[in-house]
Amino acid sequence: MKEKLNVAVVGATGIVGQQFLVSLDGHPWFRTTRLAASAKSAGKKYLEAITDQATGSVRWYCEEKIPEYALGITVEDASEFNFKDVDIIFTALESDIARELEPYYAKEKPVFSTASAFRYDEDVPIFVPGLNMSHASMLQVQKRERGWKGFITPNPNCTTTGLAVTLAPLYERFGINSVHMTSLQAISGAGRSPGVIGLDIIDNVMPYIPKEEEKVEKETRKILGRCEDGRISPADFKVSCTCMRVHVKDGHTESVFVSLKREADPEAVKKAMRAFGREFTDLRLPSSPPTMIVVTDDPYHPQPRLDRDLHGGMATMVGRIRPDESFPNGIKYVLLSHNTKMGAAKGCVLAAEYLAEKGYI
Amino acid sequence: MKEKLNVAVVGATGIVGQQFLVSLDGHPWFRTTRLAASAKSAGKKYLEAITDQATGSVRWYCEEKIPEYALGITVEDASEFNFKDVDIIFTALESDIARELEPYYAKEKPVFSTASAFRYDEDVPIFVPGLNMSHASMLQVQKRERGWKGFITPNPNCTTTGLAVTLAPLYERFGINSVHMTSLQAISGAGRSPGVIGLDIIDNVMPYIPKEEEKVEKETRKILGRCEDGRISPADFKVSCTCMRVHVKDGHTESVFVSLKREADPEAVKKAMRAFGREFTDLRLPSSPPTMIVVTDDPYHPQPRLDRDLHGGMATMVGRIRPDESFPNGIKYVLLSHNTKMGAAKGCVLAAEYLAEKGYI
Amino acid sequence: MKEKLNVAVVGATGIVGQQFLVSLDGHPWFRTTRLAASAKSAGKKYLEAITDQATGSVRWYCEEKIPEYALGITVEDASEFNFKDVDIIFTALESDIARELEPYYAKEKPVFSTASAFRYDEDVPIFVPGLNMSHASMLQVQKRERGWKGFITPNPNCTTTGLAVTLAPLYERFGINSVHMTSLQAISGAGRSPGVIGLDIIDNVMPYIPKEEEKVEKETRKILGRCEDGRISPADFKVSCTCMRVHVKDGHTESVFVSLKREADPEAVKKAMRAFGREFTDLRLPSSPPTMIVVTDDPYHPQPRLDRDLHGGMATMVGRIRPDESFPNGIKYVLLSHNTKMGAAKGCVLAAEYLAEKGYI
Amino acid sequence: MKEKLNVAVVGATGIVGQQFLVSLDGHPWFRTTRLAASAKSAGKKYLEAITDQATGSVRWYCEEKIPEYALGITVEDASEFNFKDVDIIFTALESDIARELEPYYAKEKPVFSTASAFRYDEDVPIFVPGLNMSHASMLQVQKRERGWKGFITPNPNCTTTGLAVTLAPLYERFGINSVHMTSLQAISGAGRSPGVIGLDIIDNVMPYIPKEEEKVEKETRKILGRCEDGRISPADFKVSCTCMRVHVKDGHTESVFVSLKREADPEAVKKAMRAFGREFTDLRLPSSPPTMIVVTDDPYHPQPRLDRDLHGGMATMVGRIRPDESFPNGIKYVLLSHNTKMGAAKGCVLAAEYLAEKGYI
Repeated sequence: MKEKLNVAVVGATGIVGQQFLVSLDGHPWFRTTRLAASAKSAGKKYLEAITDQATGSVRWYCEEKIPEYALGITVEDASEFNFKDVDIIFTALESDIARELEPYYAKEKPVFSTASAFRYDEDVPIFVPGLNMSHASMLQVQKRERGWKGFITPNPNCTTTGLAVTLAPLYERFGINSVHMTSLQAISGAGRSPGVIGLDIIDNVMPYIPKEEEKVEKETRKILGRCEDGRISPADFKVSCTCMRVHVKDGHTESVFVSLKREADPEAVKKAMRAFGREFTDLRLPSSPPTMIVVTDDPYHPQPRLDRDLHGGMATMVGRIRPDESFPNGIKYVLLSHNTKMGAAKGCVLAAEYLAEKGYI
Repeated sequence: MKEKLNVAVVGATGIVGQQFLVSLDGHPWFRTTRLAASAKSAGKKYLEAITDQATGSVRWYCEEKIPEYALGITVEDASEFNFKDVDIIFTALESDIARELEPYYAKEKPVFSTASAFRYDEDVPIFVPGLNMSHASMLQVQKRERGWKGFITPNPNCTTTGLAVTLAPLYERFGINSVHMTSLQAISGAGRSPGVIGLDIIDNVMPYIPKEEEKVEKETRKILGRCEDGRISPADFKVSCTCMRVHVKDGHTESVFVSLKREADPEAVKKAMRAFGREFTDLRLPSSPPTMIVVTDDPYHPQPRLDRDLHGGMATMVGRIRPDESFPNGIKYVLLSHNTKMGAAKGCVLAAEYLAEKGYI
Repeated sequence: MKEKLNVAVVGATGIVGQQFLVSLDGHPWFRTTRLAASAKSAGKKYLEAITDQATGSVRWYCEEKIPEYALGITVEDASEFNFKDVDIIFTALESDIARELEPYYAKEKPVFSTASAFRYDEDVPIFVPGLNMSHASMLQVQKRERGWKGFITPNPNCTTTGLAVTLAPLYERFGINSVHMTSLQAISGAGRSPGVIGLDIIDNVMPYIPKEEEKVEKETRKILGRCEDGRISPADFKVSCTCMRVHVKDGHTESVFVSLKREADPEAVKKAMRAFGREFTDLRLPSSPPTMIVVTDDPYHPQPRLDRDLHGGMATMVGRIRPDESFPNGIKYVLLSHNTKMGAAKGCVLAAEYLAEKGYI
Repeated sequence: MKEKLNVAVVGATGIVGQQFLVSLDGHPWFRTTRLAASAKSAGKKYLEAITDQATGSVRWYCEEKIPEYALGITVEDASEFNFKDVDIIFTALESDIARELEPYYAKEKPVFSTASAFRYDEDVPIFVPGLNMSHASMLQVQKRERGWKGFITPNPNCTTTGLAVTLAPLYERFGINSVHMTSLQAISGAGRSPGVIGLDIIDNVMPYIPKEEEKVEKETRKILGRCEDGRISPADFKVSCTCMRVHVKDGHTESVFVSLKREADPEAVKKAMRAFGREFTDLRLPSSPPTMIVVTDDPYHPQPRLDRDLHGGMATMVGRIRPDESFPNGIKYVLLSHNTKMGAAKGCVLAAEYLAEKGYI
């Protein structure tokens, strides 16, 4: 039994920070010892920090209860908190604040972030656990080049995760020419400050999510890219997306059309997907799903409400795998990925588990 | 001023029949003189026929009021009603009943149907008003071959309509290699017997609609096809669809990726779409939109709740027109079409107006 | 034919301001000549003022189109605009700004407001058109006491309107001991800055709306009160409310339990409700419903989505009228009132029509 | 450690039956050995019985996975299955079938039912676990009078449960004059055959649920009644309800206004509610919540989506406890009860646990 690592959660009072707290509740390897947030929360016990003083209402947004351990921690100011005695920092910050604070932390400590601030830097790997942990070699490059003792690794955009996971086995086995993806994204992906306004989504679809498509197109290729000469060289296929918001709480559904380099019938695709990531899941990391991709033959699945929590929200479910005769070696399918679990805080925790297991932390 | 034509609505008590009644309310050319439904409604006044006797509840499902004219009509039995004195029959029947009854009507009268029963017969044109009214030449073939005085013309599946309308100008101007479409369909498209069950769609997406994709793929090519040698020869491009149900009442949103035969930048596409169908809309038929396609540059549109009723639900709105670099001469966009107006009863009425105007009726 | 009155709309760029613009579109008596908003909109044409410059997105939130007339008007700064040449000012301001600006306008002009700032002042009548227009006598008191040429009259809270309208005939005919009301309020009642957050209302009920219950309890009694000695003396019955938010776009549903002073069976209640307000509706004011209350015997109504737009959203629908044996002379029913039509801007316009007709303006 | 009891679930393929299977998964005292359903499922393994043969779709409707144990059981015909070797029968039948089959089972075995068929028989107790288990004395009466070895005990209507639980401590401590309740019920309460139709509930409230109000009014008084002379004599206060359906998946919210016999301030009410049922919860039965009622001071709670799963859906949450000055000794509050957990199958299982513990089985 290893000794537990101490971890801090920065941005702990917001919705993503709360998801970190839940992901770390009862964690067998990580002990949450510090919580940080903006100056106005500093000095307050966690429960007080999330309680509206006027009404006594507790601003806790997860279906899971507030973890007991958090109640006793006094929140510190993110811009000056004492992180010397922690081993890992998880950050749930807005991108502009992340850009400022994360390097300050990374000088000393490993930083796992849900912000996009550093995602597109050439020496920064975007981990999708079970897919591209080989990119961990970039961490040495990053440390060396930046003169840091720690490092920054952001998770991908929540819409990228499921797409990248399902393309990985196809890319590996059959090669990919092009990808056309339409997303039906859950409202929790936008957070709640204010996130998606009720009047905008009731009986409605929002056909546009600013910057989302660019992120998915760029990140997918980077995640599936190769580390060469101290740089991540993006995968060479093309990705085209239309990203929309639908009336679903959690779970991004994506309709994917892929043109493969080599012919593959649906059965071969299913086999490749089912086999994918076994060496990773065999590690049985605490937050790992037992299998990366769950393939279903039931045409009425995946459905976000019924399937998003499969394997703790950490598996990607794929259904409706069919040939697509409209382009060469075409395959089409529908995937579902939990945007606030595998696609956010809990995905970061899983990446940290891997790096801890492999001695990077 | 022409004399009004007498029309009958068959299946008048159901939700699609009710939409016919609304579409015909105050119609300047058509006078609804007969209503027919199943035997159990026969002999009752319309209001009584749609009233649940146990509770006194009126089973009327349109936001519009019950048209006054309908209240005074006694419903007849669809399988034996007297349609000698009507000029047009609109039918809103389940497909299996349509298969039986529509030929019986068509022996004598023009039949405009929302059922799919005859859609795929070679001598049966599927009209999308403003798009392929030239297929009217098939009506003569159909009459001659079947020995009918009337004819049958079904409308397309509601998901096909918006796709076909927006592809038409692209096909005409630039040619089409392939189409990849993902639909986010409204629940009203499934009717209410029971249609979409509440528990299946709350906080959810249904990733499968039986037979829908096959219909859209087949109908789109037929609608954009050419009449040759007394047959409709389908358009030669490929269509691949994934059809899903989302939590929206009315209005089908579709994410479309098209590979054109010739290069076209977004501005050229917008211009072609805006110009499309002008000779049709210039006829100023009573149910016609002033323009077939409304193109918007606002990235947050089209939205089903805000835009579906544009021009009485008869225009198709297109937004987010962008280049798609993932395949040759690629263009992508999002469209919105009202599935129970242009995509159903009111679309049939508009087709009938055209054929009446042009002397086919 | 009278000459049209010139009107200004203040707060014209927000959602309530937009509802005023729609309510005034094509108005036979009122001509909208001035629009005012915050300083940052001042000097811009209306369309520009509501357009997001970054994306080109038009922030227009009504299902109705933007009225043509508004497009040509240059927005002025609400704190210093020139209202000399207008006859009526409609304001759609946040309460704190209303408290400051409305008296400034009222020194000169009649002000109809949707803000609660002055609702509880003793010399300020809260009009529910068709119900308590006799309170217009207070306007003279207000003018005299405050030394104004104009006056301020706020509309009630949107939840109060339907309750007051339905209680009025009961109070008049049978007397009221007590009222217990539970509201199921639409999300549009909270506006969109941000109003109800999507994550708070999807698959949910919010059991609390700050200050709402106090407003309803107080306003209902004031509206049904009597003008005595230059003051409005509130009605003497008790009102107890629980106000909740439900997943409905427009239309507040209210479940009401009333203990009457004198016995009344459901038929007598229906009769009183149907007869209510006839002298007002007989005026046939431009925005008036043909009847104040529509009573239905269909137990499945009122339903917000199907019934809210009845008579342009200006009638209150009442259903499920039953005896309530749990208290003396008990009656219970369900009402539906359109919170953004009769319950907001359009209700103000109707009040202004009445006062114009009667010579108060 | 006691030996496990064998239990059968009848109606096992439907949604309520599935909830029984989930409630019994991993149960420490009960072992599910037999499943029964209609004749058309008989002879099939459970998974096959719920699989649509045409599409391969599995008709499983719980968020929880299908329990492993169920997969191996062959479904029997409910009208002739062999229940000799089971100790308890849980039934999830439509009321008309329940009326026929339950007495046939009850001749030999204890029957716990979710059907209303026998609820109103004088010798049939309706158990709300933790509230009226003293009514168990009626079981002897029932057995003796009907000549059965077993007995029938139905659970209450799901809307009654939360109301009865929260009224019990008030009735006990302060006495009750009258109750006025408005329910905002979840759609899962209507099942899915078809249950609530999507088109009826999107952006809507349904103001009527047939027979619901009568059930709640009658059952509440029976549950809180006393056993006297071999009969249950109903509680003597009056209950008046308006029951509505809202757009929520699970969890019935109820707005309650109570007139007590003796004065009680909100703090006294909270204290009584918090203390309620301790002798029951102290038994620590497997499905029991740790406390019957959870009282919150946060005005924004209870919310169905966030709070319904509290304590496995077995606790009733109460918030917004306030004085109600509109009637004598008035108190008002909002409650939330999980309609498919405590309010249905799992509530039956908990009642069975109690009766097993106390030797009635």
